[in-house]
Amino acid sequence: MVQIRATADTDKIRARKRAMLHAASRAFRAKGFHDASMRDIAAALGMTVGNLYYYFESKRHLLAFCQDDTLTRLLDSVSHAARVKRHGLTADQRLWLLIVGHVVCLNESVPGSLAHLEVEQLPSRARRPMLDRRDRYERRLRAVVSEGIAERRFRKVDPKVAVLAILGGLNWTVRWFRPDGRLSARDLGEQIAEQFVRGLLMDGVEFEKPDVDLPRANGLIETENGE
Amino acid sequence: MVQIRATADTDKIRARKRAMLHAASRAFRAKGFHDASMRDIAAALGMTVGNLYYYFESKRHLLAFCQDDTLTRLLDSVSHAARVKRHGLTADQRLWLLIVGHVVCLNESVPGSLAHLEVEQLPSRARRPMLDRRDRYERRLRAVVSEGIAERRFRKVDPKVAVLAILGGLNWTVRWFRPDGRLSARDLGEQIAEQFVRGLLMDGVEFEKPDVDLPRANGLIETENGE
Repeated sequence: MVQIRATADTDKIRARKRAMLHAASRAFRAKGFHDASMRDIAAALGMTVGNLYYYFESKRHLLAFCQDDTLTRLLDSVSHAARVKRHGLTADQRLWLLIVGHVVCLNESVPGSLAHLEVEQLPSRARRPMLDRRDRYERRLRAVVSEGIAERRFRKVDPKVAVLAILGGLNWTVRWFRPDGRLSARDLGEQIAEQFVRGLLMDGVEFEKPDVDLPRANGLIETENGE
Repeated sequence: MVQIRATADTDKIRARKRAMLHAASRAFRAKGFHDASMRDIAAALGMTVGNLYYYFESKRHLLAFCQDDTLTRLLDSVSHAARVKRHGLTADQRLWLLIVGHVVCLNESVPGSLAHLEVEQLPSRARRPMLDRRDRYERRLRAVVSEGIAERRFRKVDPKVAVLAILGGLNWTVRWFRPDGRLSARDLGEQIAEQFVRGLLMDGVEFEKPDVDLPRANGLIETENGE
C-alpha cells in the first residue's frame, strides 16, 4: 500500500506525536483547540514547552500533523475497503465499513477530531496538499456510491451530493460526541452507518451488516501494527 | 403561533436587518465571517460604518441577530410541520419537509449560513438563550422521529443519535453549497431530505414525497408575510 505523507517523520516519531496529542486531549476538550495554548498542551503532557516545540514547531504545525495523520488513516481505510471488495462485500457493506471507520477515526483520537474542521487555519503551503488528499478521499467514497448504483444496490442518487451529505453528518459528530457518554465511538459509528447506508438503498434491497472485524479490516485503529 | 425572540426588534426593523445581511453576503462569502470587518460589511451595503452600527452594536450583535433570526425561522418551521400533521401527513413526510426547510433556510440567506456554526463566538449572555432555543428545535425534530417509530414508519432508532446525525449533514451544507452552482438550495434540500428520511424507514415502508407547497407550508421563506 502506498502511503502518502506530507511530513518526513519516521513511523516511530509519528506514533510518539500521536500518543502525545492523545494525551493532550484533556487540554483540547477543556479549552477548545483555538484557546489551548502550547503551554496548556505541554502542561497536560507533563513536559516543558521547549520539549513540545521540539516535536511541533508551532500550533499550526501541530494542527497540520493532526490533519495529515487523520487523512492517512482515512485513506488507509479506503484501501482496505477496496481489498475487502475482493472478498465479496457489496458496495453498501463497504460503505458501512468506511462510515464506521470514519466515525471511530474522528472520535477515538483527539487528532482526528480536529482534522476536518480547521483546514482554513493551516499554513497556506500545507493547505493545498491537505485539500488534495481530502479530495482524493472524497472521490473514493463517491466511487463506492457509484459502484452501489452499478450493482443496483443504491438508488440513482447524485454521488457527490450523497457523499457530502454523509460526510457532514460524520464530521459533525466531533461537535457532540462525548467519549464518556453512554455510547462508544464504535457503537455510534455503527448506528450512523446503518442510517446513512439505508438512505441510499433501492426499494426492496435489504441491508446486512458485513461480517468483518472492523479494526483489522480497515486498519483504522491499529495503524501502527497494520499490514 | 408564539414567537420567541431574543431581541425586542419590531418586525419592520427585523426585516430591514435581514435584508441588510442578505445584501452583505458578498463580503461574507469573499472574506468569511471572521475576516469580514464592520467596514467591509458597510461597504458592501453602500452605507457608512456609523449607520451600520446604528443597526448592530458590534459584530457579535450582528452574529447574535443571525442566529436568533435563523432559529426563529426553524422554530416556525416545526410549528408549521405540526399543523400539516393535522392534514394527514406521515411522520416521514413531515421530517422531509423539515429537512428541506432547514437546508433552504441555511443556504438561501447569509444569516442562516452562519447560524449553527458560531455559537461559541456569541457574547456569553446571548449564548444560553440561543442554546435553549436550539435544544428546543432539536427536541421537536426528535419528537417527529419518535412519532415515526410509533407510527411504524421508522425503525427503532435512537432518536437523539438519528437527529444529530441528520443535523450534522444539514448544517455542514453551508461549508460546501455554492449558490451559483448547478443545484438550487431547494433542489439540494430535496435530495438530502429523501436520502436522510429513507435512512430511517422500516423495511417494506415506501416513502412518498409530500404534496405540499413548501414555502407556504412551513413559512421559511416568507416569514414576514406568513400566518
